[in-house]
Amino acid sequence: MSVVHEPAKVRGFRFSGVSAGFKTVAGALDLGIIAAERPAAAAAVFSANRVKAAPVYVTADRVKSGRLQAVVANSGCANSFTGAAGMKLARDSCAEVARLLECAPNLVVPSSTGVIGHLYDFEKFRRGAADAVRSLRDDGLADFAQAIMTTDTRPKTASTTFKAGGATITLAGAVKGVGMISPKMATMLGYLVTDAAIAPAALKRSLKTALPASFNAITVDGDMSTNDTVILMASGAAGNRAFGARDAAAFDRAVEEVSAALARELVRDGEGATKLVTVEVRGARSPADAERAARQIANSPLVKTAFFGCDPNVGRILMAAGSSGAYVESDKLILWIGGVKVAANGRLLTEALPQAGAKMKDREFDVQLDLRVGKSRATILTCDLSYDYVRINAEYTT
Amino acid sequence: MSVVHEPAKVRGFRFSGVSAGFKTVAGALDLGIIAAERPAAAAAVFSANRVKAAPVYVTADRVKSGRLQAVVANSGCANSFTGAAGMKLARDSCAEVARLLECAPNLVVPSSTGVIGHLYDFEKFRRGAADAVRSLRDDGLADFAQAIMTTDTRPKTASTTFKAGGATITLAGAVKGVGMISPKMATMLGYLVTDAAIAPAALKRSLKTALPASFNAITVDGDMSTNDTVILMASGAAGNRAFGARDAAAFDRAVEEVSAALARELVRDGEGATKLVTVEVRGARSPADAERAARQIANSPLVKTAFFGCDPNVGRILMAAGSSGAYVESDKLILWIGGVKVAANGRLLTEALPQAGAKMKDREFDVQLDLRVGKSRATILTCDLSYDYVRINAEYTT
Repeated sequence: MSVVHEPAKVRGFRFSGVSAGFKTVAGALDLGIIAAERPAAAAAVFSANRVKAAPVYVTADRVKSGRLQAVVANSGCANSFTGAAGMKLARDSCAEVARLLECAPNLVVPSSTGVIGHLYDFEKFRRGAADAVRSLRDDGLADFAQAIMTTDTRPKTASTTFKAGGATITLAGAVKGVGMISPKMATMLGYLVTDAAIAPAALKRSLKTALPASFNAITVDGDMSTNDTVILMASGAAGNRAFGARDAAAFDRAVEEVSAALARELVRDGEGATKLVTVEVRGARSPADAERAARQIANSPLVKTAFFGCDPNVGRILMAAGSSGAYVESDKLILWIGGVKVAANGRLLTEALPQAGAKMKDREFDVQLDLRVGKSRATILTCDLSYDYVRINAEYTT
Repeated sequence: MSVVHEPAKVRGFRFSGVSAGFKTVAGALDLGIIAAERPAAAAAVFSANRVKAAPVYVTADRVKSGRLQAVVANSGCANSFTGAAGMKLARDSCAEVARLLECAPNLVVPSSTGVIGHLYDFEKFRRGAADAVRSLRDDGLADFAQAIMTTDTRPKTASTTFKAGGATITLAGAVKGVGMISPKMATMLGYLVTDAAIAPAALKRSLKTALPASFNAITVDGDMSTNDTVILMASGAAGNRAFGARDAAAFDRAVEEVSAALARELVRDGEGATKLVTVEVRGARSPADAERAARQIANSPLVKTAFFGCDPNVGRILMAAGSSGAYVESDKLILWIGGVKVAANGRLLTEALPQAGAKMKDREFDVQLDLRVGKSRATILTCDLSYDYVRINAEYTT
């Protein structure tokens, strides 16, 4: 199974992205729709943040039925912390799209991303939605991906095709990031669509299986959004027969691989990021210990600024591991940066540092820490902390 | 009781700071000694990091006796993650100072701060220690404070005098920061000396009482050092009679107030910091919830960059509170920035934002969040995240 980043067509779905005027840059796409020809099987996962945005509540409620026909997503405004007015706006927006698509309002779900605490203008939404419905095309996924961007520097899509249930199945997805990225359940906005015929419960299971190694294994800044949502919809247009165990496994793998490819894109495009770093901790006493240590390293501002400076600062990485709460013995651990062993036997391998520093000049490298006190492992993708992260976030206006 | 930042004389102690050549800048002070005339009562607290530096192990072991006569502290090298060689270096350094001071080696403790993973040159230490012992003066605390600085932009001292046990007691302290600052038990290097006659057990209790509202209530970058140490020594030279309950309370208050003043200085001088922000969470369901929410706000890179940009970004503060694990109800909470109410009843008070933004231009301001779901509170001091934090830490060489 190979995943490509070109946006694919997925039978049974159409997509669009238009400019509704929510973003300050004239003509920037900021309203997108994914519409199924008929009600599709659906599942979703959401932010674990206690402060959730209105669209998250509406989507969570409606997806319980296991059926959705359309998603309408806007950028430029998160419709979060907007109280009853925000809930009404989210529902009215869905109702408007349902009217245009001639489907039931509770089959349409909203997503919003952007600044927290503000409502978007409903008149602008109305005009934009009419335009977006008119613009729906089977090859419109790229436009949709563009319309959900905020501080993203590029649209992010991925797709794969595989055989299952006697048919060729396509799975495609689009995501946006790229700040407030550190998942506990689901991160950012993500949409996966497939033409497979598959039940909502199976979709939900696939999504949950895919999360740990994809959207839940990344961090940009350790901050968890109020709007995080990942939706998976299946049109059934592939006409496959009911999945057996092997087909289901192939489907799960496709969801995981497309999710992982999209997650990787998210970190690569992290705010101000110049490097993609894979932090792998192994030999930990427990899975929780492995994850704690990996996350602490991946989120440490001191480690991330050292990545930016191509500085093989072993001390900061070990400081982070040691402060994570994970069980660590200084004398046992081994640390590699870019495949170069830089610490072992309780000592820094000073002579190896120039070589490790040279590896850090690559746009992608690994940090591997073997704690050698157990058998558990965890991997987190992260990026560096650069001047541009500060610039982007100090200047992003409320 | 008033705390001043001028370094005081404390009867029974002498101090010095000299250049031993550990720092790359020629002539920069980098070796300091605090010496008591005779063995002093002593207590200490240390880093909760699992990766601890050699000097921390040596100090923790020796302070158990409740008696210390001298501290020798160097900057420019942390002697952390240096294995058996580091332990030997720390002990040899103490032995050398003990020889010069003509006291028992186990009454001398070492502190080191700087880059992790390297040893300092013992010959340089020897020459420096001889110079430092010769330079000991009763008014030398300012030099000592200078000698322990790393990325600190200024020395940090504080002192107070008060009456207890029929005598006038002086308590003075010096600290250094200013990166890798986020305590779980004690942060950075800190030294407090007093002329009070008081037992080691009482010193320990005072120190532990003072921590929650001082050194444990600050954060610069959420990263916990491997060398964090706070030592409190009492010479007894004030000649007070044994403390009654009221005297002990006055002493505890002095330790807390001097510690809090020093902690505040640490955050004010945080790496790249341009602002000192007090984050207060109240109305939480439990003390743990209050602390979680306050720490998450205080450590969030998105919140801290908004502080830097003087951006009253309510959404980011609420996002952080919501993702902290603390129990939060969006509709109940009230948020103030710089004393200006910016969120209530589940809504952003948009009209108040310009006023809040204006308050954020001050070098110091408060963020107050009343969760209104309980009675617990917590306060954390933090700073902003600026370009200079990235510059300092991307360029700080291993």
